[in-house]
Amino acid sequence: MVEVSRRNMIAGTAAAAVATVNPATISASRAQGAVVAPMTGVYSYKLGDVELIQVYDGSRTFPMPDGFVVNASKEETAKAYQALHMPPGQLTISFSPLVIKSAGKIIAIDTGNGLGANAASKGAVGNARHSMTAASIDPKAVDIVLISHFHGDHINGLKNADGTPAYPNAQILVPATEWAFWTDESNASKANASNKGNFANVKKVFDGLKPTPFEAGKEVAPGITSMATPGHTPGHTSFIVASGGKSLAVQGDVTNHPGVFMPNPGWHAVFDNDGALAEQTRRKFFDMASADKLPVVGYHFPFPSAGYVEKNGNGYRLVQVHALT
Amino acid sequence: MVEVSRRNMIAGTAAAAVATVNPATISASRAQGAVVAPMTGVYSYKLGDVELIQVYDGSRTFPMPDGFVVNASKEETAKAYQALHMPPGQLTISFSPLVIKSAGKIIAIDTGNGLGANAASKGAVGNARHSMTAASIDPKAVDIVLISHFHGDHINGLKNADGTPAYPNAQILVPATEWAFWTDESNASKANASNKGNFANVKKVFDGLKPTPFEAGKEVAPGITSMATPGHTPGHTSFIVASGGKSLAVQGDVTNHPGVFMPNPGWHAVFDNDGALAEQTRRKFFDMASADKLPVVGYHFPFPSAGYVEKNGNGYRLVQVHALT
Repeated sequence: MVEVSRRNMIAGTAAAAVATVNPATISASRAQGAVVAPMTGVYSYKLGDVELIQVYDGSRTFPMPDGFVVNASKEETAKAYQALHMPPGQLTISFSPLVIKSAGKIIAIDTGNGLGANAASKGAVGNARHSMTAASIDPKAVDIVLISHFHGDHINGLKNADGTPAYPNAQILVPATEWAFWTDESNASKANASNKGNFANVKKVFDGLKPTPFEAGKEVAPGITSMATPGHTPGHTSFIVASGGKSLAVQGDVTNHPGVFMPNPGWHAVFDNDGALAEQTRRKFFDMASADKLPVVGYHFPFPSAGYVEKNGNGYRLVQVHALT
Repeated sequence: MVEVSRRNMIAGTAAAAVATVNPATISASRAQGAVVAPMTGVYSYKLGDVELIQVYDGSRTFPMPDGFVVNASKEETAKAYQALHMPPGQLTISFSPLVIKSAGKIIAIDTGNGLGANAASKGAVGNARHSMTAASIDPKAVDIVLISHFHGDHINGLKNADGTPAYPNAQILVPATEWAFWTDESNASKANASNKGNFANVKKVFDGLKPTPFEAGKEVAPGITSMATPGHTPGHTSFIVASGGKSLAVQGDVTNHPGVFMPNPGWHAVFDNDGALAEQTRRKFFDMASADKLPVVGYHFPFPSAGYVEKNGNGYRLVQVHALT
């Protein structure tokens, strides 16, 4: 019997391939994004009487030599990225909208990078609609789209590549604070450098759509309550989904990459408009989730984007689970 | 602006639900398996020119008061299970067959608990075929089914609920050592208590099928090489998938639950026919995977069932990644 050993692996017919396993090769391929089209991801589960379906939009690997975390050194971040098996000097981020079937309604939370991004990224992202189709969800049947905040990776999927509405029969519900901020270009003076360019994209995406603003602390869809989690953007919003005596929290960018910001909650992302407020929100939110053992769904968590948050040293960690409910 | 705080969550409209979040309630629901039908899981990615599609069969939560790990105390295992956010005294295990598209062939590795199990488990498991359909994979188009070993959760999906072949046009390739062992009932004397009953199921599942035995260390499908990883069962086999200078390892039960046996590689599962050999294989396999930074797909890993293995103290840990390639 041939047993596991490096020697017999190298002696076997896969020898050449195994012998040439090389993280640098993998990294280069990741960075090009050339081998990831099309990506499909679907994961369904239940919470009480509510069905939740994660629909994967994809993952991108960005060259981020020193720009992603604004208050940590290049050396510190490089060490953190390496610990996560990401390509040297680069950062891989996932994107996963959530579809919820509750009380006869189909509700989407955020929309992905959009079908235009799919072509531009060679299929690495912009696959949420493709994943929805795999889950037998017809975009025309979506009743409500809830938006967490107005960054492009969350709102661009509201439109098809040709500019037509992607969810033509859905009510589009947006945080009132977010709407007020981004639709008034005079607020550009309150936006940091990485957010100043976002006003134009917001205008373009919402042109021809009729979004309805909602307040924090309200039931915005059956069993779904909004919660203000500001800092990343002024109106950044999370959601609590509740059914049958159980709850889970859905967070957009309370943390972006969980492997980066959970162990280092004091690190500020370049896309945080107010890094200090984002950090305060992050600590409160994760303290609550860990104390209450509240499952958390994260837009940028590795697919299928759900887990439990635990305190760990001076930070937090995400524990993936086999079944949420 | 309402900001995140426990007070405003309780003051909000989801107050009743949030206030009653109770791990015990979640646990009871998990244990009943009543809320998990139907489960769908699909996750596609690429390795070189090969496409890999994880197809989720589901997760089950078993009452395992003290029987799952045979050489650790009830207190030790209870502590380990609790750290994984599983219901008190219970263990949740996932099942994920892998479909590979390589050189024009469609290859499945293992088959899930089967459609009969879907009904019996109220949809908690037996969903691999449903997930394949979501991934637009027609069972009739599957060319090769590779089997890691002959336990029911890996082979029962070879048949439909009515006993007809689930992959009618596929070559069914099985480890030669596994075939020799389980098809000779005189070997029952070499099987431990939890494996003695498996001979009858093997006979039933393979009745009417014409499996072809393969040896370890051979290319069994385009770019896929078999590797003997014995102990869990005598012919337990893993696979190395290689394409474009990159490789990954596919392991059935080198570890069962990664959260249990990776930190505690010396623990033996009740289903290990030879616990000591299984442990030796596990340590060799994970030493190799961690040294070579070889991505590992695990049949019982939490969906989507892939990650990197790292040495951690006296054991190992699984690091989930955002994108494998």
